[in-house]
Amino acid sequence: MRRWNGWGDDSTSMALPESAGEFLNNAVGAGQLLPDATLAEVASKVPESRLAAHKLITTDATERVRHAKGQSLPDYLAMRSGDIDCFPDGVCYPENRQDVKDILTYAKAHNVELIPYGGGTSVAGHINPNASQRAILTLDMARMNQLMHLDEDSQIATFGAGTPGPMVEAQLLARGYTLGHFPQSFELSTIGGWIASRSSGQQSLRYGRIEQLFAGGNLETFAGSLDVATFPASSAGPDLRELLLGSEGRFGILTEVKVRVSKLAEKEQFSVIFFPSWQQASQFCKEAVQQRIALSMLRVSNAVETQTQLKLAGHEKAIAWLERYLSWRGCNAGKCMLTFGLTGSKEQISASKKQLSRLIKQFNGVNTGQLLGKKWQSNRFRSPYLRDALWQQGYVVDTFETATDWGNVDSLMAKVESNIRQGLAAESEQVHAFTHLSHVYSQGCSLYTTYVFRNASSYQATMECWQKLKHIASDTIVHNGGTISHQHGVGKDHAPYLHVEKGELGMKVIASLTEHFDADNQLNPGTLLE
Amino acid sequence: MRRWNGWGDDSTSMALPESAGEFLNNAVGAGQLLPDATLAEVASKVPESRLAAHKLITTDATERVRHAKGQSLPDYLAMRSGDIDCFPDGVCYPENRQDVKDILTYAKAHNVELIPYGGGTSVAGHINPNASQRAILTLDMARMNQLMHLDEDSQIATFGAGTPGPMVEAQLLARGYTLGHFPQSFELSTIGGWIASRSSGQQSLRYGRIEQLFAGGNLETFAGSLDVATFPASSAGPDLRELLLGSEGRFGILTEVKVRVSKLAEKEQFSVIFFPSWQQASQFCKEAVQQRIALSMLRVSNAVETQTQLKLAGHEKAIAWLERYLSWRGCNAGKCMLTFGLTGSKEQISASKKQLSRLIKQFNGVNTGQLLGKKWQSNRFRSPYLRDALWQQGYVVDTFETATDWGNVDSLMAKVESNIRQGLAAESEQVHAFTHLSHVYSQGCSLYTTYVFRNASSYQATMECWQKLKHIASDTIVHNGGTISHQHGVGKDHAPYLHVEKGELGMKVIASLTEHFDADNQLNPGTLLE
Repeated sequence: MRRWNGWGDDSTSMALPESAGEFLNNAVGAGQLLPDATLAEVASKVPESRLAAHKLITTDATERVRHAKGQSLPDYLAMRSGDIDCFPDGVCYPENRQDVKDILTYAKAHNVELIPYGGGTSVAGHINPNASQRAILTLDMARMNQLMHLDEDSQIATFGAGTPGPMVEAQLLARGYTLGHFPQSFELSTIGGWIASRSSGQQSLRYGRIEQLFAGGNLETFAGSLDVATFPASSAGPDLRELLLGSEGRFGILTEVKVRVSKLAEKEQFSVIFFPSWQQASQFCKEAVQQRIALSMLRVSNAVETQTQLKLAGHEKAIAWLERYLSWRGCNAGKCMLTFGLTGSKEQISASKKQLSRLIKQFNGVNTGQLLGKKWQSNRFRSPYLRDALWQQGYVVDTFETATDWGNVDSLMAKVESNIRQGLAAESEQVHAFTHLSHVYSQGCSLYTTYVFRNASSYQATMECWQKLKHIASDTIVHNGGTISHQHGVGKDHAPYLHVEKGELGMKVIASLTEHFDADNQLNPGTLLE
Repeated sequence: MRRWNGWGDDSTSMALPESAGEFLNNAVGAGQLLPDATLAEVASKVPESRLAAHKLITTDATERVRHAKGQSLPDYLAMRSGDIDCFPDGVCYPENRQDVKDILTYAKAHNVELIPYGGGTSVAGHINPNASQRAILTLDMARMNQLMHLDEDSQIATFGAGTPGPMVEAQLLARGYTLGHFPQSFELSTIGGWIASRSSGQQSLRYGRIEQLFAGGNLETFAGSLDVATFPASSAGPDLRELLLGSEGRFGILTEVKVRVSKLAEKEQFSVIFFPSWQQASQFCKEAVQQRIALSMLRVSNAVETQTQLKLAGHEKAIAWLERYLSWRGCNAGKCMLTFGLTGSKEQISASKKQLSRLIKQFNGVNTGQLLGKKWQSNRFRSPYLRDALWQQGYVVDTFETATDWGNVDSLMAKVESNIRQGLAAESEQVHAFTHLSHVYSQGCSLYTTYVFRNASSYQATMECWQKLKHIASDTIVHNGGTISHQHGVGKDHAPYLHVEKGELGMKVIASLTEHFDADNQLNPGTLLE
């Protein structure tokens, strides 16, 4: 069953190798455990619902607990402590477009706030209710999870907006197709959520971001229905698809979405190359993408992430041999690990390999083949389980991410890491931080930073540490040429920083659109715009 | 010097081969000549300007004639006849962002309507003034034509928005780069115009549409400045770039634009393949793009276009030999000509050729190599000159285009061609119509139809024929799954049909954005929205 206070299904968990404890102790000090609340304790604190009865709505306390928080670190601390500030007054599970229309009518009639809910995987507070004078209803789209139509000629699939990643791929696989959208939240996040938050998947280099995959669909709003027709491309004025992408539930409820799918590729493989330095590894990425070499995925860990991953991998002896070999080939302390994917026909993969081999040589890369690549592939959706594993040892882990142009990558990464590492100096606490680049474009790439610190003596104090670090990271990013988010959206946590990149007039435009669709601010208030 | 009443520079013209006359006579009857007006005659009819004096503004009559019309067929008839319904009251040539701001201030103070003007190549009425109680000022961006900055690391070039195609490419070429955006209007159209009208170039298959090339920039509006930052990608809410793309001058004036450029490719070649039928040729295209074979351009002429092009090419004896050879290889009456481009490193081109060769065989294609491809390449921007050549023989030619999903391509093409051919039945006139597909996407492609009919006995009657045909084409397209435009925008001519694809709510959203930026409807009124 899905965990109520952590990631994923409770039949799956991740154990840290023994060596991890020593590594973390050296890096940030001994972990400190904090007491967990139980679901029953939290459910008993849920206040009475303020919602008028409706056949589609449940006000069950457990359901309301399970829809109160997403997967950000503050969400996690709230769920672990049981100290949850606000619950939705109820949850409904629409089964079709008409149900969504009925709920909109109900919300308008009863002055209710609505929160559209996909997989509840937001790490930026998208689906958290804010305390309000009005009753709050969460629309869980989980029952709209079917492949409704597949046009094999045009390679367009129509899905219910609540279809989660595994059900998207399983239903397409049965017909010989794939969407190819694999965010790390894939196990739980939904196709509608990907569109509403402008998501990007690990293989965006081949399949594109959700912006490229989303072809059209239906949005139900207080102002009426918006049906966006599918065209392969159009110059007929502003693109309405773009209104839905990144709308974060502020304009309406996505009900059915049409996406561009691909035939299953003949072959796919992931491999790992080590480079002596970050400089060489990142230049390799830039050249590969600017030379349009057909790859499906590229990711480079910087030296600290590489070292951390090798330490946390277990298999100490095997890793020692690997490092001895790499050292002999010129990859020492500053070495960086690059994982890349090739997907396509055998002929296409062999052509890409040929083009890559010259580049690998040029930047002194050491290709270790597919062994570590297979390891990455089998663990590609496991990282979110790491938070629980670290929590059991008394540590918290969080991530943030951005994207910037190639000319700014090194400078932004250095500033962000340096600021975050010094972020708890006043508390005399260490922060262990490391970064990878992924999602490469000819213009630049995303930067994804992970940081670990140990729990403070209380939930409150731990939360204050996080708030400090989150502000430092966000502020450093937006004032140094990065976007506040490359793949996680704005939600409530990033909303205070959005104006820096959108500008005053840009923010006004977005606000005017929100007012156009939702004059009474009933749809997901506080998200996207403060 | 640039022609005032036709396409391009008057040192360039196109002659039809002798065989063309007979072909046209058979197809639609003998041509009928109509008398041309002179520039002096038209200039003498320009009314007094209603504009208050300003140092940046000229009210010279010839300038006002030269900015009164674009390049649509009604524009052409108006210029040829000299019967021009409306002239701008003046023209100004801003040299920098501050000049644009000054003109906006002036326009607000004096209640003047503004029309942003790039190359004046619109075929949909974008830059035509509509008769108004208010004075009308055309902003010609021609003096903002410089490459202002090139970030070679991030491959981003900043241009003045008025830079025309040849100056974009020449300034980049000097640095070893290309934008790769080659619409047929390339000789005259500008980078700002491409963005404002969501243009697509002949090699969009490699370089992308202008949506993919446009990275950010500055828009000056009555509501303030909008500076769109460059990020390789972002999930931070609605994408403001999308507000500028397709805005058609309704929101503000683009002054400086940042675009994604590429290093010049090592090699480029164009080749021609013939297929026995449309079915085989179009399936080949669909397969090539859905299999992600790296091509830079694909275009298939249907059987009538293929036949027409071979007839109008001259070189009768050579063509006869070609057709004899093709017939021997199985390509007879229904044969279709496909032109494709390969661009990249030698290695990449050779890999693509290998992947293509199997597909060519599968669909019974006959590869005639690069001879006809070179011919296409050298004439790639010459087609707009054809209108003058036909006019001299007493015929008018026009085109329209759309895009649709693969599942709808054959049906839409058949309906459009059939309706347009019968369009002048009441006048007992023939219409010769033919189509090519180009700009292929995994989801579908664009369809580009050319039609020729002979002049009626007067300008007025000729114009009425065109209006009838334009309505038939537009109406058939939007009610049968096509977009009103794949690459030419909405302007004034397509505005009446836009609501079919955008829907009622979609139209309201676009209108609300227009009002947000331009409460008094002073910016390019009548364009995009009726």
